[in-house]
Amino acid sequence: MEQPERVASRLRARYDAVRAFTESLCAPLCAEDYVIQSMPDASPVKWHVAHTTWFFETFVLGERAGYAPFHPRFGYLFNSYYVSVGERHCRPRRGVLSRPTVEETYRYRRHVDERMRELLDEIGAGRHLDLAFTIEVGLHHEQQHQELILTDLKHAMAQNPLRPAIFGGAPPGRSGGPAGELRFVEHAEGVRWIGHGGDAFAFDNETPRHRVFVGAFALAERPVTCGEYLRFMQDGGYARPELWLSSGWDAVVANRWEAPLYWEPRDGGVQLFTLHGLRDVDVDEPVCHVSHYEADAYARWAGARLPTEAEWETAAQGALSGAEEVPGRAAPGEAPPGNFAERGRFHPEPASAPSRPGAPRQLLGDVWEWTSSAYAPYPGFRPWPGALGEYNGKFMSSQLVLRGGSCATPATHVRATYRNFFPPDARWQMSGIRLARDL
Amino acid sequence: MEQPERVASRLRARYDAVRAFTESLCAPLCAEDYVIQSMPDASPVKWHVAHTTWFFETFVLGERAGYAPFHPRFGYLFNSYYVSVGERHCRPRRGVLSRPTVEETYRYRRHVDERMRELLDEIGAGRHLDLAFTIEVGLHHEQQHQELILTDLKHAMAQNPLRPAIFGGAPPGRSGGPAGELRFVEHAEGVRWIGHGGDAFAFDNETPRHRVFVGAFALAERPVTCGEYLRFMQDGGYARPELWLSSGWDAVVANRWEAPLYWEPRDGGVQLFTLHGLRDVDVDEPVCHVSHYEADAYARWAGARLPTEAEWETAAQGALSGAEEVPGRAAPGEAPPGNFAERGRFHPEPASAPSRPGAPRQLLGDVWEWTSSAYAPYPGFRPWPGALGEYNGKFMSSQLVLRGGSCATPATHVRATYRNFFPPDARWQMSGIRLARDL
Amino acid sequence: MEQPERVASRLRARYDAVRAFTESLCAPLCAEDYVIQSMPDASPVKWHVAHTTWFFETFVLGERAGYAPFHPRFGYLFNSYYVSVGERHCRPRRGVLSRPTVEETYRYRRHVDERMRELLDEIGAGRHLDLAFTIEVGLHHEQQHQELILTDLKHAMAQNPLRPAIFGGAPPGRSGGPAGELRFVEHAEGVRWIGHGGDAFAFDNETPRHRVFVGAFALAERPVTCGEYLRFMQDGGYARPELWLSSGWDAVVANRWEAPLYWEPRDGGVQLFTLHGLRDVDVDEPVCHVSHYEADAYARWAGARLPTEAEWETAAQGALSGAEEVPGRAAPGEAPPGNFAERGRFHPEPASAPSRPGAPRQLLGDVWEWTSSAYAPYPGFRPWPGALGEYNGKFMSSQLVLRGGSCATPATHVRATYRNFFPPDARWQMSGIRLARDL
Amino acid sequence: MEQPERVASRLRARYDAVRAFTESLCAPLCAEDYVIQSMPDASPVKWHVAHTTWFFETFVLGERAGYAPFHPRFGYLFNSYYVSVGERHCRPRRGVLSRPTVEETYRYRRHVDERMRELLDEIGAGRHLDLAFTIEVGLHHEQQHQELILTDLKHAMAQNPLRPAIFGGAPPGRSGGPAGELRFVEHAEGVRWIGHGGDAFAFDNETPRHRVFVGAFALAERPVTCGEYLRFMQDGGYARPELWLSSGWDAVVANRWEAPLYWEPRDGGVQLFTLHGLRDVDVDEPVCHVSHYEADAYARWAGARLPTEAEWETAAQGALSGAEEVPGRAAPGEAPPGNFAERGRFHPEPASAPSRPGAPRQLLGDVWEWTSSAYAPYPGFRPWPGALGEYNGKFMSSQLVLRGGSCATPATHVRATYRNFFPPDARWQMSGIRLARDL
Repeated sequence: MEQPERVASRLRARYDAVRAFTESLCAPLCAEDYVIQSMPDASPVKWHVAHTTWFFETFVLGERAGYAPFHPRFGYLFNSYYVSVGERHCRPRRGVLSRPTVEETYRYRRHVDERMRELLDEIGAGRHLDLAFTIEVGLHHEQQHQELILTDLKHAMAQNPLRPAIFGGAPPGRSGGPAGELRFVEHAEGVRWIGHGGDAFAFDNETPRHRVFVGAFALAERPVTCGEYLRFMQDGGYARPELWLSSGWDAVVANRWEAPLYWEPRDGGVQLFTLHGLRDVDVDEPVCHVSHYEADAYARWAGARLPTEAEWETAAQGALSGAEEVPGRAAPGEAPPGNFAERGRFHPEPASAPSRPGAPRQLLGDVWEWTSSAYAPYPGFRPWPGALGEYNGKFMSSQLVLRGGSCATPATHVRATYRNFFPPDARWQMSGIRLARDL
Repeated sequence: MEQPERVASRLRARYDAVRAFTESLCAPLCAEDYVIQSMPDASPVKWHVAHTTWFFETFVLGERAGYAPFHPRFGYLFNSYYVSVGERHCRPRRGVLSRPTVEETYRYRRHVDERMRELLDEIGAGRHLDLAFTIEVGLHHEQQHQELILTDLKHAMAQNPLRPAIFGGAPPGRSGGPAGELRFVEHAEGVRWIGHGGDAFAFDNETPRHRVFVGAFALAERPVTCGEYLRFMQDGGYARPELWLSSGWDAVVANRWEAPLYWEPRDGGVQLFTLHGLRDVDVDEPVCHVSHYEADAYARWAGARLPTEAEWETAAQGALSGAEEVPGRAAPGEAPPGNFAERGRFHPEPASAPSRPGAPRQLLGDVWEWTSSAYAPYPGFRPWPGALGEYNGKFMSSQLVLRGGSCATPATHVRATYRNFFPPDARWQMSGIRLARDL
Repeated sequence: MEQPERVASRLRARYDAVRAFTESLCAPLCAEDYVIQSMPDASPVKWHVAHTTWFFETFVLGERAGYAPFHPRFGYLFNSYYVSVGERHCRPRRGVLSRPTVEETYRYRRHVDERMRELLDEIGAGRHLDLAFTIEVGLHHEQQHQELILTDLKHAMAQNPLRPAIFGGAPPGRSGGPAGELRFVEHAEGVRWIGHGGDAFAFDNETPRHRVFVGAFALAERPVTCGEYLRFMQDGGYARPELWLSSGWDAVVANRWEAPLYWEPRDGGVQLFTLHGLRDVDVDEPVCHVSHYEADAYARWAGARLPTEAEWETAAQGALSGAEEVPGRAAPGEAPPGNFAERGRFHPEPASAPSRPGAPRQLLGDVWEWTSSAYAPYPGFRPWPGALGEYNGKFMSSQLVLRGGSCATPATHVRATYRNFFPPDARWQMSGIRLARDL
Repeated sequence: MEQPERVASRLRARYDAVRAFTESLCAPLCAEDYVIQSMPDASPVKWHVAHTTWFFETFVLGERAGYAPFHPRFGYLFNSYYVSVGERHCRPRRGVLSRPTVEETYRYRRHVDERMRELLDEIGAGRHLDLAFTIEVGLHHEQQHQELILTDLKHAMAQNPLRPAIFGGAPPGRSGGPAGELRFVEHAEGVRWIGHGGDAFAFDNETPRHRVFVGAFALAERPVTCGEYLRFMQDGGYARPELWLSSGWDAVVANRWEAPLYWEPRDGGVQLFTLHGLRDVDVDEPVCHVSHYEADAYARWAGARLPTEAEWETAAQGALSGAEEVPGRAAPGEAPPGNFAERGRFHPEPASAPSRPGAPRQLLGDVWEWTSSAYAPYPGFRPWPGALGEYNGKFMSSQLVLRGGSCATPATHVRATYRNFFPPDARWQMSGIRLARDL
């Protein structure tokens, strides 16, 4: 068993880093940007900043006798969906709250940070060790909201006819070159182990590690690019119902989809909106902001299909253990290399040359990759005990699994067993496409 | 004909006063308060601040050759409903715009103010005299938005579980005492002239002055009070469909109305939300924030009815010409006495003793009074020419006329012929009830 | 006072005639046609057949001690909106009821007819004389539903891609010729009496007779024709927001209106659907199935306006007393001449030559004429006592008055003081346009 | 390869039987019952009767040169969702079509039957053998609609306050006795083959046969009974969000679910509506008309879970091959024993004693059993070629698999590999619960 002081020291470093990263993402915002909610699925940045604080206040500080909440109504305002914790403000109405102000929200944040640092000292002294795990959950929770801050902000800015660039200037220079022809990597059939098994942190929905039978398949060595997706569009992809799932076609018609989210025709060409403003589409970069329906239709058009999550994870295991540059080789707690949020691009970039021929590229980072797997409990799944059991398990219905993290995901947050999930029509996440094929 | 310099001087004084009053109303706001939109019918304060500026830019400055708009997209963002002026941002989405920021919006305002002052100088020098009328329209337009800033803010704050008091501290002390029993003033039948006839400013919808036959009637000498309305509630007013218009009852059921807007049960009693925060209901003050449906049901319950607008105006003509303290005696351009926005209460107050027995009280100020008259064109009505013709005329459908101004109306904005109008289910304006009876 | 036997004899004749006319309208229907409900505002024919029966059962037979309803649940199924009578089946769900079958519904009808005839005998013998008035109400009520049977059926058939012609064969030959240029008849200003004043039957909403001041005006001597309306359409009428009320334009956009209801482009021309099937548009016949919004926009385009109901009634009084052929001269209880439901055309027809130069034509029959008057209580209005007070009064909100009856109105049902009312976007009634002008 | 005459003879017998069974189900209906549509997901019986005929006309007769459709618009009216076949009538508006009448619809049916019998003769003579498979598809298709006729009718009748019993009299006597305590049958882990593999008919979605790894599990030997479900209800099942999936709880709140569909409190007890009318709940019979959400919540409350479809099929394979009475032993084409539609009960019944201790009961018939498996393509799935490829594949999104058939399923229609599928909130099918557990 790890020494209390080591536990506390590790948590303290990570707490400081994670909390600071949230604030650094918000640094370019003006107060007005914090307030708006552009759709029910998105939340104001202010809400994210407060909710991540509320999480520590409620599930960590609140567990200790004698802690008085910073404000008697913040529990109501900043609880997201934890029914067992109490009533909460209606989600689609988060954008009508100008108060608490941004400044008060940061005061709330400071207050909880102070108490948390006191608690970490107590943990270092061997008390409250049972709260260490919840703190870790809280940090991963905050990292998820870092990604949501970015995607919700992007959605909000895209509603504004001024198309404001939150992050000024051009994005940091890209690496990578021409995409080249798409190649597939073959995998033999067999019973495979998937899911999280070790001691390191993972969400409950990644467990237990278990066996699945996976038939022979091939997986594309990189995501589908904008150039490839443009060919689908030019071939009438959005006008041919036979390429679509029935509910996907309904979504195309109802929402008048004609391109990925944030693409807009401008001056005869096509531009897309990024957190650094409008830009021309780069044909070599992974296509992003497509729904599961679009990913599925594209795959059908391309004579392929989406991978199952078991296939994806099987392939990732192989890839991430065979070469030095890959994430699996990162020391525990270290970030895998790749285009993650820390890089500050917040946009997928063209793939670099593979480390060795046939090695899959961009499995982690750049874009989340839609799988064909419904988000369901693994065999033997047990939700975390208590209120945290509401974190993941109750959403296992009518959603699909995405894998691999994106350019808006913090690097230390993701891993090969990580299961993200969204409804099939969601497009505001950094979601892209990796193809698979039967053999 | 008035001298150019006199015209300019009068307009300059009024321009300065009106523009400054808008800003004084906004003084207590933080940036976050400016952004939110709590329902499609309400607008963010920032939008009001910009739209009133856009009005001068578009209809006054834009009429002069060579004026370049401050920003190429502000016309799109801040046009409200003037179809002939061009496309515009979707009204229910005004609350998703964090940019331009509050600061930029005030820069816009400063810019237009400067140009307007230059123009006023030119008018003083005898040029562009034709724009004087439009400037006057723009000032009355801004005064209307001053009232909307107050009512929209109140609605927004009321959505917040924290119930923030925008205007801190207690409201200025009230005058007035116990309401006493309700008395009615009788009026004989006859053909009457109503509508605006003189040279002073009036909206097109107040014209032309014309004759109506008005039967004998009696009008209550003060508005219905909260105490009287509470008796209606205690008598099952919200549970007895026979008291309601059919569509009114539908609204009661659909919206689960049980009291006026902003009333809430607290600690065994009833409180109401004001711009100065939550307060106990004062039984002597006029009931406010009722819909036409509620006003109509109350009247039926009370064995009375709502007045027509012709009755109201007839009564107001008499009242406002017979005694010294009444508004009609105010010099042209001067404000009538009464509880108006300038007083800073933003809440109706109990009636003072009448100046003479039987004189109607609170006809102007305190609460808008629902009439039974549909908002329709007067016989011979001609909308203003050009785009300003869209100001009033096109809304003459499915709305009802309210009379008299409220505690949120600027005193120099209202008059006895003034016609306000809202749909029968609107409750977020300062709307109350004055009863009438057949004789 | 009329003799009981005369009262009974008159009622008996009228009861037989009205009840038989309902059934004759339904004669061409198959059982399936009776069941369907094409929109919430329309009802299945079966429901009309049962509801008109329920009206007599509830308000007449039910008033006598000892009457047991035909079926314990029919009160629930066939009450329309009489809250004081009890709960009722949800209006928009009337079309999901296959039972009672058509046959059972007619058995219900037979049963009530028998009891009603017994009651009429008792009235003849001097008992229950107080029920005579309610019986008269019930007969006028049934006549209103005769019109609704026709308009609801038409709407239902128009939803069917087969466009079934309920009434087979061509409609009876039309009279009338080329419409000719539109002329207006002038009327001097003055205080006029309108509303119903005599002993003959009228609905409560037509009373009391009262004075109004009517300014000088001119009224078109015939309704607007399809040919005239086509010119409005060709002039971009449905694409020019400046011609429309704001909520009217919203309705145009939301419903994609491009022509009156039931007009459809076919084979390069325009056809319209009638109860006798699809036909070419006749440029000389009155345009029909337009909403108030369309009538108002057309009038604005034509440089005219809609009449107020006082103007319409004033003009009708003059017209209907000056010449032999006009309705006002019909003996009491006799039908005015004109294109009414009895003629079996169920479609407006071109106007005949006027009886004398300048006499208004088609004031009664052919098409209901939208006025600019909101449906509101007349001064001194008192609803009928008891549950029948719900008949008209509670709908006096957000609707507009139409005058004159239509080709689907029974001739003995309408009169110059009759006030029909519908919301401004309603189009499925036989509603047309008569223009007015200020002088 | 089978002889043409044998193929034709077998198809002829089955065609006659299936078509006759549809008509026998409709025998008790009056014309009115055929027309109504109680919700968008359900269709009028008339539509089912016509659509199943359209299927043969379009996919079988229409394949032969020279066939002229019975009516030029029936293709538009009776196409369900086959985009590649052409435009179609809007699904939620099927209930506004009174024409074609029931009689015409049966004429259509007769017409197609005659042509089909001619074609079967040609097949017997060795021509058009390629159409044999499509005919078989058409027969299974019609059997699916037989079940939908029953469930849609039941839904429609349940909307009627009269609660009409379509099938008069009491249902045929039940077998089965007290349910007894629930026992589970254990299954060892291993790689299993599931899916359809033989030559007999199966839908494309049952193929290809493939391997899955199935962990050790236990499956309940009978479905959950009404008595057991009542205990869940009495324990606050519908008021405890922690028992529900998040979207399930949303459905409970939005729809105010408090019991399975068709249960209603009456006279102090609980009754349920059946196609034979209202009846008391039988505590020993399988609970029916629950959504996936309710099945899932019940299972969580019971400390169990729903089976995956692989578990269900694995268990069914064992059960149906080990004992004489089980369906798997039925000769090809013969019906398995069980409570199916042919029995005419149309309601689940208490389980009989097991044939041998521990043998699962009621796997086939009585109620469809919700699994936890999303409806997804099997590995290597290929939809049928052509328009029939739209039959199943395009619905593989946001639905869940149900297994085993019900009391409304024709016995010759179902098998152990059969995959039914509905969205998680669907309740109007005969859907129940079988529990599973990890070992």
